[in-house]
Amino acid sequence: MKIALAQLNYHVGNFEANTNKIIYAIKEARQNGADMVVFSELCICGYPPRDFLGFTEFIDLCENAAKQIAAACTDIACIIGLPTVNSFPEGKDLFNSAYFIENGAVKAVVNKALLPNYDVFDEYRYFEPGNEFTCIDFKEHRIALTICEDLWNNIDDPLYRTRPMDVLIEQQPDLMINIAASPFAINHDQERMKVLSYNAKKYEIPLFYVNHVGAQTELIFDGGSMVYDAKGQIVDELDYFKEQLTYYDIEKTGIKEVSVKAGQPLTPDVSRMSKIEQIHQALILGIRDYFKKSGFSKAILGLSGGIDSAVVCVLASEALGAENVMSVLLPSAFSTDHSIKDAEDLVSNLGCMSQTVAIKTITNAFESALEPQFAGLPFNITEENIQSRSRAVILMAMCNKFGYILLNTSNKSEAAVGYGTLYGDMCGGISVLGDVYKTQVYELANHLNREREIIPQNSIVKPPSAELRPDQKDSDSLPDYEILDQILKQYIELRKSSASIIAAGFEETIVKKVIRLVNISEHKRYQTPPTLRVSAKAFGMGRRMPIVGKYLL
Amino acid sequence: MKIALAQLNYHVGNFEANTNKIIYAIKEARQNGADMVVFSELCICGYPPRDFLGFTEFIDLCENAAKQIAAACTDIACIIGLPTVNSFPEGKDLFNSAYFIENGAVKAVVNKALLPNYDVFDEYRYFEPGNEFTCIDFKEHRIALTICEDLWNNIDDPLYRTRPMDVLIEQQPDLMINIAASPFAINHDQERMKVLSYNAKKYEIPLFYVNHVGAQTELIFDGGSMVYDAKGQIVDELDYFKEQLTYYDIEKTGIKEVSVKAGQPLTPDVSRMSKIEQIHQALILGIRDYFKKSGFSKAILGLSGGIDSAVVCVLASEALGAENVMSVLLPSAFSTDHSIKDAEDLVSNLGCMSQTVAIKTITNAFESALEPQFAGLPFNITEENIQSRSRAVILMAMCNKFGYILLNTSNKSEAAVGYGTLYGDMCGGISVLGDVYKTQVYELANHLNREREIIPQNSIVKPPSAELRPDQKDSDSLPDYEILDQILKQYIELRKSSASIIAAGFEETIVKKVIRLVNISEHKRYQTPPTLRVSAKAFGMGRRMPIVGKYLL
Repeated sequence: MKIALAQLNYHVGNFEANTNKIIYAIKEARQNGADMVVFSELCICGYPPRDFLGFTEFIDLCENAAKQIAAACTDIACIIGLPTVNSFPEGKDLFNSAYFIENGAVKAVVNKALLPNYDVFDEYRYFEPGNEFTCIDFKEHRIALTICEDLWNNIDDPLYRTRPMDVLIEQQPDLMINIAASPFAINHDQERMKVLSYNAKKYEIPLFYVNHVGAQTELIFDGGSMVYDAKGQIVDELDYFKEQLTYYDIEKTGIKEVSVKAGQPLTPDVSRMSKIEQIHQALILGIRDYFKKSGFSKAILGLSGGIDSAVVCVLASEALGAENVMSVLLPSAFSTDHSIKDAEDLVSNLGCMSQTVAIKTITNAFESALEPQFAGLPFNITEENIQSRSRAVILMAMCNKFGYILLNTSNKSEAAVGYGTLYGDMCGGISVLGDVYKTQVYELANHLNREREIIPQNSIVKPPSAELRPDQKDSDSLPDYEILDQILKQYIELRKSSASIIAAGFEETIVKKVIRLVNISEHKRYQTPPTLRVSAKAFGMGRRMPIVGKYLL
Repeated sequence: MKIALAQLNYHVGNFEANTNKIIYAIKEARQNGADMVVFSELCICGYPPRDFLGFTEFIDLCENAAKQIAAACTDIACIIGLPTVNSFPEGKDLFNSAYFIENGAVKAVVNKALLPNYDVFDEYRYFEPGNEFTCIDFKEHRIALTICEDLWNNIDDPLYRTRPMDVLIEQQPDLMINIAASPFAINHDQERMKVLSYNAKKYEIPLFYVNHVGAQTELIFDGGSMVYDAKGQIVDELDYFKEQLTYYDIEKTGIKEVSVKAGQPLTPDVSRMSKIEQIHQALILGIRDYFKKSGFSKAILGLSGGIDSAVVCVLASEALGAENVMSVLLPSAFSTDHSIKDAEDLVSNLGCMSQTVAIKTITNAFESALEPQFAGLPFNITEENIQSRSRAVILMAMCNKFGYILLNTSNKSEAAVGYGTLYGDMCGGISVLGDVYKTQVYELANHLNREREIIPQNSIVKPPSAELRPDQKDSDSLPDYEILDQILKQYIELRKSSASIIAAGFEETIVKKVIRLVNISEHKRYQTPPTLRVSAKAFGMGRRMPIVGKYLL
């Protein structure tokens, strides 16, 4: 039997595009002699469909798309993912299902049993867990088909009470197929490989795993679909961050001895892609798909001469083409000459568009208008914020006039401690670096410069500053980023208490200050743009903190 | 037996305040001769604790608070709600539990079995469903104790596969207690009474129901704790939107014949409180608790002379005291004289603070600065947005300088269709009217004027306008609000398709335009402030739509 794995980039709710793409792959797989082509979880509607699932019409459109796909699926079989109606009287109204389609008809339906409902996942909001497990017979094979999380309960601290494969294995399948929607996060690929290998080894049959690729707002799907043999050894690994259709010949030589032959040479192992290159690729894909799927092509950003906006400008130019990136220098009375020069050097290195709009007359106008109210009061964070917000008004005006989307350039460290101005530098359609700590931004800048100096070295080595008052430095009010980022990781990603972070060797006053800053900034982060997610715990939909809550303040 | 119901206002994560409040109520109940005092669901940590639950330290603090409460609970019993650790190896790490405490010790633990995970609820994100059901014996009574949703599966389309009371009733309890955290929404009180009455009648024993009161950011808990007799008749109903501690004598005259005597006269039935008065009370409580629980006391808002900001100004003055409300008139070149006069009249009627800051020099400064970029291009929405954003910069500057929180004044109709400027009039710490349709805003304005004219009649009767260009009217670009609001309700609250809304008699072009406007505004709503929730489907945490999704565009 020849099996094809289709690792494709879908668009949530875009039934026409998704259906066409699936049908195209079916035709191509058939031309290449495949017996079956496997698509990923909820491929018909895209992942995550979120509250679209609450519309009956949306579910009908999924079913219609499945009918079109079934009609096109002759002389070949396929597996597709879609939401389906739960016809039992009790439980939620939907299942997260897979259809096994053969010669134009749905021959089997599998319902996902383990529904992730942590971090960015909300599946239990919509779906009833499946509770019937039956293998699918096709040609000379018996297939145990599961959906993503269904294979993920094999850990020391199991999150669920059931294990679908423990039931399915009783029916003596000779191969496993798992269709997934598993988003990228640093180190998640390692975890995924461990889990897949564990399953293949435990059940002693080969495993075909098909993931999404492409970004849906903040979630970036990295692909990396995989094939494991019955010993838990990796046979093939599809590309990361790219669409791909690959083929495998399966020979049956006896029960539990199905061998898997790769149809083409092994693709490069992800271990050869460095972590920083993974982040780089993820962010490029995240930017590109955000624009493409929103129907926009041109980005705008404020260029300060600092490292964050420089990195975003390079990433955007790579994702969209430098000709589609407008960088705007917005100098104030406190902008230093070297910052303006660093920004200009970057523009010339990249070849993106650039404009300069000085904000001095504007901030003066605000200060004059507010003179009666502010008379006699000293310059403070108010006037700093006026500068930042004046820049945002200009950038948004250019968006409105010319159809750009504004890219937010805040990094995760400053987003964490609230070191940014709401409705000022915290504006934007999408946050590019909001899940990248400042120390990682440096790493990324050096990585982007690995072949030639694109980002001026000066932007990388100078002490970071918001330049909102004379001689301001980030280090005036924050600990060094090397310390700050470690504390933030302990608190945000590992959810440690201040006591245990202090016990790990960090200074008490600094730890308490940092945690306090994180907590009192929840109201600001609530109103920030969606953030491209590259870590296991990004701000946004995956981290839901109370706003008026008092814990740890 | 004398039972006390404690309907209290907790603060999420504020262990000190919550614990003190609970202990105080225990002492008072004991002094009044109660045998047991019942608190509401998760009262120790407040509801909803959200991702605070992911911190081990937070759970430890809950347990510590429970110990303090137990120590204070001598010569009386109490029921409290808190998260507890699931000690079974499988399943999620926590339960949503109730402790039955008697004479200083925890005598029984009940775990919530039905975990709401729809709309604003995320309980399955944190909790494992309870699956053991045992009644509690206390004095001469056998109590079936359940937690909120546990009683809510008795409907035609059950959401869950189990019914805890069906198991508990086998043990022949003679009364039910249900502790809840059930937020306010228009008509939800009627639904709640139906469900409680149904349960009392079905199981033929009295039911004591204790709810939260008070707001936690967007969620407003309305109280309305209740007592039903074994026939499903209401015996008593606690106040709405107020803290209360009430007492009931229970006499045992035989199994299934426990009678309930109210300890005081019946409180007014909610049916006597009009729906608009419920919304009024809910919003007052929402504003007051947002400020109090954030540690702020003073509000600021932009006053346009229109109805929305006028209504917010009245509500804020009622919630915080007019002396704590700063209204700012921000006239532009397009502001009409009558609008300025209407705003001034409101200020004088209310006695709140007021300032005027003209924005003309500021918008001129923006237009001059952008002259090189915008030369030759016509005035359009860009310049309208500059006005709106300039106002936001001024309001935020006053917040930063003086410690106000900005109140957002957008209504639900305009938030729905994106008729507002991101980082402009969509700014604020909390949205007061974001879940109140424009037609309801009119109703609310008339209600606020029921005793005397506070809001100038002219603000109510004039055609609504954003006044961002000459002679602009909302009706230039939107259908009449009577039509718009009906379409929005069909789409947002009932999740109807355009086809079925058209079939219900609305004009096709209008329906399609409205739905398109709602869909293309998701990215704007994503960045707006939390919205006080008064309907069954508010924007924010209870409505999670894709941003780059394409469905129905």
